[in-house]
Amino acid sequence: MFLRNAWYIAAWDREVGRKLLARTILNQPVVLYRKSDRTPVALEDRCCHRQLPLSMGVLIDDDLRCGYHGLRFDASGACVGIPSQSSIPPQARVRSFPVVERWNWIWIWMGDAARADPDLIPNLWWADHPDWTCSRPDMFTLNCNYRLIADNVLDGTHLTYVHSSSIGTSAIAEVEPKTDREGRLVRVTRWILDRPPPPMYKEAGGFAGNVDRWAIVEHQPPCYSVNFAGCVEVGYGGPQGDRNKSSTKVELVALSMPTPETDKTTHYFFAFSRAFGHNDPAVEKMFSQTMVDVFREDIVILEAQQRMMDRNPDSPQVNIKVDAASIHARRMLDGMTAAEQGA
Amino acid sequence: MFLRNAWYIAAWDREVGRKLLARTILNQPVVLYRKSDRTPVALEDRCCHRQLPLSMGVLIDDDLRCGYHGLRFDASGACVGIPSQSSIPPQARVRSFPVVERWNWIWIWMGDAARADPDLIPNLWWADHPDWTCSRPDMFTLNCNYRLIADNVLDGTHLTYVHSSSIGTSAIAEVEPKTDREGRLVRVTRWILDRPPPPMYKEAGGFAGNVDRWAIVEHQPPCYSVNFAGCVEVGYGGPQGDRNKSSTKVELVALSMPTPETDKTTHYFFAFSRAFGHNDPAVEKMFSQTMVDVFREDIVILEAQQRMMDRNPDSPQVNIKVDAASIHARRMLDGMTAAEQGA
Amino acid sequence: MFLRNAWYIAAWDREVGRKLLARTILNQPVVLYRKSDRTPVALEDRCCHRQLPLSMGVLIDDDLRCGYHGLRFDASGACVGIPSQSSIPPQARVRSFPVVERWNWIWIWMGDAARADPDLIPNLWWADHPDWTCSRPDMFTLNCNYRLIADNVLDGTHLTYVHSSSIGTSAIAEVEPKTDREGRLVRVTRWILDRPPPPMYKEAGGFAGNVDRWAIVEHQPPCYSVNFAGCVEVGYGGPQGDRNKSSTKVELVALSMPTPETDKTTHYFFAFSRAFGHNDPAVEKMFSQTMVDVFREDIVILEAQQRMMDRNPDSPQVNIKVDAASIHARRMLDGMTAAEQGA
Repeated sequence: MFLRNAWYIAAWDREVGRKLLARTILNQPVVLYRKSDRTPVALEDRCCHRQLPLSMGVLIDDDLRCGYHGLRFDASGACVGIPSQSSIPPQARVRSFPVVERWNWIWIWMGDAARADPDLIPNLWWADHPDWTCSRPDMFTLNCNYRLIADNVLDGTHLTYVHSSSIGTSAIAEVEPKTDREGRLVRVTRWILDRPPPPMYKEAGGFAGNVDRWAIVEHQPPCYSVNFAGCVEVGYGGPQGDRNKSSTKVELVALSMPTPETDKTTHYFFAFSRAFGHNDPAVEKMFSQTMVDVFREDIVILEAQQRMMDRNPDSPQVNIKVDAASIHARRMLDGMTAAEQGA
Repeated sequence: MFLRNAWYIAAWDREVGRKLLARTILNQPVVLYRKSDRTPVALEDRCCHRQLPLSMGVLIDDDLRCGYHGLRFDASGACVGIPSQSSIPPQARVRSFPVVERWNWIWIWMGDAARADPDLIPNLWWADHPDWTCSRPDMFTLNCNYRLIADNVLDGTHLTYVHSSSIGTSAIAEVEPKTDREGRLVRVTRWILDRPPPPMYKEAGGFAGNVDRWAIVEHQPPCYSVNFAGCVEVGYGGPQGDRNKSSTKVELVALSMPTPETDKTTHYFFAFSRAFGHNDPAVEKMFSQTMVDVFREDIVILEAQQRMMDRNPDSPQVNIKVDAASIHARRMLDGMTAAEQGA
Repeated sequence: MFLRNAWYIAAWDREVGRKLLARTILNQPVVLYRKSDRTPVALEDRCCHRQLPLSMGVLIDDDLRCGYHGLRFDASGACVGIPSQSSIPPQARVRSFPVVERWNWIWIWMGDAARADPDLIPNLWWADHPDWTCSRPDMFTLNCNYRLIADNVLDGTHLTYVHSSSIGTSAIAEVEPKTDREGRLVRVTRWILDRPPPPMYKEAGGFAGNVDRWAIVEHQPPCYSVNFAGCVEVGYGGPQGDRNKSSTKVELVALSMPTPETDKTTHYFFAFSRAFGHNDPAVEKMFSQTMVDVFREDIVILEAQQRMMDRNPDSPQVNIKVDAASIHARRMLDGMTAAEQGA
């Protein structure tokens, strides 16, 4: 059960072109391509005649022709040609999905097309701003439900245990986070002041001693998490600090945007925008390679969690304090989904 | 749900000998072998004692001895020996299935043995006639329901889209087929007159220009399809043409005889008989290799279709005109199966 | 459905140490380790917080710390530390299982801990006695229900058919076994007098001619089978023979101790104790390698049996005389399990 009236990332912009891309989203088979004018198109990836995936067909100009019996569909999903017959039955069509290209991603709306307002796409301006450099690694498909990813991002303590060799330090788990809500936004804030930087920050900023560090995650339903993180010299961080007065500033925004593929698998799109080291190959490598390896540490955990949940779906779970934010997020999404189902 | 009172192909004659052959047919495990006098035998491939497949045992003369506890069964399925005891309980037996060897195939009857009339085996005389040369490629096991194969054979338009590089031309899809029934036989007829030959025919017949071509499929339940195809010089084909007056004639019969293995897998037996190029190695290669590769193109489609159907078994299907024959065939088989279940 | 109030082998003693061992037993995920003082510990392998297997965590002294959020559990399963908070909710604990180290195995009790009496562990003294040499091959995990293994061990006739090239001779199947019960013990006795020895015995004892041979299996619920086997010179075997007067004596005890992993998979622990050839490398090789290969012959059979049973779980089975012991054993276990479920 997914929230259907919402924008989900279907693909990186670079993945969609004149070659047909098959992708399952919210359990639905979807085929993605671009028209000759580069407009992205998303159709149901199942011929209405005998169910062959349309992604096994070919593009004829802006239309898609099925690879089995040659039925031809235009970008609206309407069948516009059937070999051996001149009339086309009105029910011969496949579903088309609203798509919008923004922040280097192709966004798709799987619900009621009439409600697909592009203004509902989250504002991720750091992903596409001249003062920021964005690393955009390839998507991973994970063998876990997408909500486990938001749980992971909203909880900072796991950094200490899962990522101890890269971005984690014992400091995070020791700091009690502040959780607050603004409308549909859940925010978890951690200020870690006058403590040693984790290895990655130390290397990026060249800090000699302790730093003031922040880690703020803002989450919105159904599955958008933005992680603001960084550090400055001691004295310039913290809620009242003026970061810009620090001689060195490591500031980054990590976008965590999972899209449900099925109930138990997820297309995990993520990106890192940074306001430092713009043309530094070493820093770029840190985000395009090292951070991807950090995510691999999470994947091992998330998939093991899913396998264990599958063994006993009704197993009770004890909540702890750091779960506050993810419990908020889950309740909000459950409420929205229930309302949508009821509507 | 299968029609049980019918002959199905269990194996090529060359597959069955003194080495035990295990094969699932209509969801039933079957073991096939030949007696010393070469008579083929088919028994239930499950020991009545502790269920080991009998195909893991050994042949002792004309009997089969289980590889676990040594129970011995004769060719009728009766247990004729149990180690450590002299009496044999009457229920100690496995099912035996009627088998007939014909047209180089071993045919099996999975239903009521009393109704297993060999005269019900279809007449496939081209498969075994001195004026014809028959190519008999190895069977494929496909990951799809067997009825998708008849759908495929009864519809000619797919040649244009699936087999464009081998036997397909755009001509086929443009010609409206004629569908008729004679009793339990469904026939689809296409005359394609004065058009360029497809690559394979052109190569076989050495035609310089256009040809008159025919493609006639006759289908009988549960799953026998015979495809008559070929071409001659322009003027000698067509319903009234005298093919024998053409200086060159390419005439062939393709036998498409799938046997259900399970609900979602099929043993696909097929053969090609031709009335030309009898001792020509190039022509033989065309049927024993090139045409097998053509079938592989279908397999990719059929298995993708099955996977998509499995994702949503109740997904609606829009019918088009070329489906007329396969709809006839499916209705006829459904009726016969329902009648058998009701009996 | 398993008998839960019983001791099962969880692991070889050598498998459990300071490295966490994950093992499923009776469908339950279990993690095994040793405390600093070498005491073995078995905990539920699922964190009570967010279900990560605890076996993916780390040992901190005698406690286990979860690899996701750092919850720390002591050897009793109680949570003794949660990062970012000082109080620990009382329901924060995982199950701990009673374990006992005996006969070089770690035994586990999956039922009511209050009833876990170590005296209920079977007496397998040959496994650990100075007059005997014990070979302890690594455990196999088999794709079959554990009860098929007791069936196999309790029936001697299969040696003739499954192990004809190693320990089987036609003699076994020809001898009618005697089956008797003593309380919860089922015993199958075979005396094979004045017959040629099977290849393995012949090699071990260097017998020139016939031998007197015995094969006695004692089985106790839920799944302990002890196979007493061997041979002496003719005249010294048999129920009244004085084996010690034989110039050569081949005497061994095979322990067959399967532990259910799931309903359809089994951890098969087995060992061979012998009262001969104590420091003979050739004899040691016979038990640590050749006999393991003999067991592999059984595995092929057992897994094929399970696959066939899965295809049709309700398929009828005809019983024969040699099944008497396994039927006794199954009924006894069924009765005990039903009583436990009813209690």
